[in-house]
Amino acid sequence: MKIDILTLFPEMFEGVLGSSILKKAEEKGIVHYHLVNFREYSDNKHKTVDDYPYGGGAGMVLKPQPVFDAIEDRLEGSEKKPRIILLCPQGETYTQQKAEAFAEEEHLIFICGHYEGYDERIRTLVTDEISIGDYVLTGGELGAMVMIDSIVRLLPGVLGNETSPVTDSFSTGLLEHPHYTRPADFRGMKVPDVLLSGNHRLIEEWREKESLYRTYTRRPDLLRGYPLSEKQKAWLKEWEEKRG
Amino acid sequence: MKIDILTLFPEMFEGVLGSSILKKAEEKGIVHYHLVNFREYSDNKHKTVDDYPYGGGAGMVLKPQPVFDAIEDRLEGSEKKPRIILLCPQGETYTQQKAEAFAEEEHLIFICGHYEGYDERIRTLVTDEISIGDYVLTGGELGAMVMIDSIVRLLPGVLGNETSPVTDSFSTGLLEHPHYTRPADFRGMKVPDVLLSGNHRLIEEWREKESLYRTYTRRPDLLRGYPLSEKQKAWLKEWEEKRG
Repeated sequence: MKIDILTLFPEMFEGVLGSSILKKAEEKGIVHYHLVNFREYSDNKHKTVDDYPYGGGAGMVLKPQPVFDAIEDRLEGSEKKPRIILLCPQGETYTQQKAEAFAEEEHLIFICGHYEGYDERIRTLVTDEISIGDYVLTGGELGAMVMIDSIVRLLPGVLGNETSPVTDSFSTGLLEHPHYTRPADFRGMKVPDVLLSGNHRLIEEWREKESLYRTYTRRPDLLRGYPLSEKQKAWLKEWEEKRG
Repeated sequence: MKIDILTLFPEMFEGVLGSSILKKAEEKGIVHYHLVNFREYSDNKHKTVDDYPYGGGAGMVLKPQPVFDAIEDRLEGSEKKPRIILLCPQGETYTQQKAEAFAEEEHLIFICGHYEGYDERIRTLVTDEISIGDYVLTGGELGAMVMIDSIVRLLPGVLGNETSPVTDSFSTGLLEHPHYTRPADFRGMKVPDVLLSGNHRLIEEWREKESLYRTYTRRPDLLRGYPLSEKQKAWLKEWEEKRG
């Protein structure tokens, strides 16, 4: 997978792209990152990339020209049309389902603004406008890093045995059950007996029930439309009744 | 504000904490970041921080001891109880309202897991469990960076005139209106006439309407419970009727 990142702060990405899974994925040749400082594309002799907003108001607005030219440069020689992603608060809310769809692509281009708004005409270039959540960030850089991490870890060959993507929260649709490791007694806090029982059927049932209970108490919105088994329906009914 | 970050990958933070607004905030003495590699707290001679899960299964689980000891070390000499934040998919969904609440605190401690799940007993230490969105990340590091960026930019004195926090998306409750800057005609795409009119009343009205329209079409969920003015109600009615 080819990942191009248009940003005014390429140095922000070093720690994240240079560590852990994202670094290993590049070393294995599974993904190639290319950081583009679109300030270099400014046709202005002062290399400015922003300007005052038409109609007045505070804040600066990213000019269309440097972004258009940088994108066109990335498209050159590209056979298949890439997905061009604008990180912005007005975008569609990012989800695991979207991560899975982006992981099928061969080429992604991320456009990260910083401080300012984007000139509206930049939106004509993009295939996807994405927001990673309902909070305000200083720029699109962290959003791009979040998306890249969530996408790259899904690419075949990236994750070894060090993690278990299948049982991750959100990929199953439910929150994960609690985990415990040694010691069995830590400062008086004990591991549930069932996990020490060696009875795999009971352990599986405990985990399934805890996963559902955690989702029911913390994120009931995730249960809307979830295909519940008869056993799960019975558990939910039991909890509903207890709640009164 | 004091910000402590417990992580196994402190180098991941360098680019983000060392750039832009987050760096300036530290230079101005408004915030102090302290990265703690909790592997250093492992009482095991091999400095391991994870172990196999009780009950079997794939993946490793973060042991309680190194995290407990690292946190207790950070609490020493701390007068006011800090907020201790666990980044995890099971947490409450992060929002701008939460960012504003955290920005009132004096001391935040972030716990970032990586790859693995947390031993359940670690949760007894924390005041807040937070998820930045419904997607799976390799670790809590990016979540901590996202939270820190959204919080630090709200601290008094951090943002200069380079941005406009008040009109940000989410802080007003509506998505932002479109922005335009020069040129008035870029490759045949023109700036709306009203923005060139110099009529500030009309410009304000256009912006208010566009902001509402964008929210209505892209994120109608944000309008639930939003205190609409009579004018805004009339616009919404007009759009509803057009839609049929």
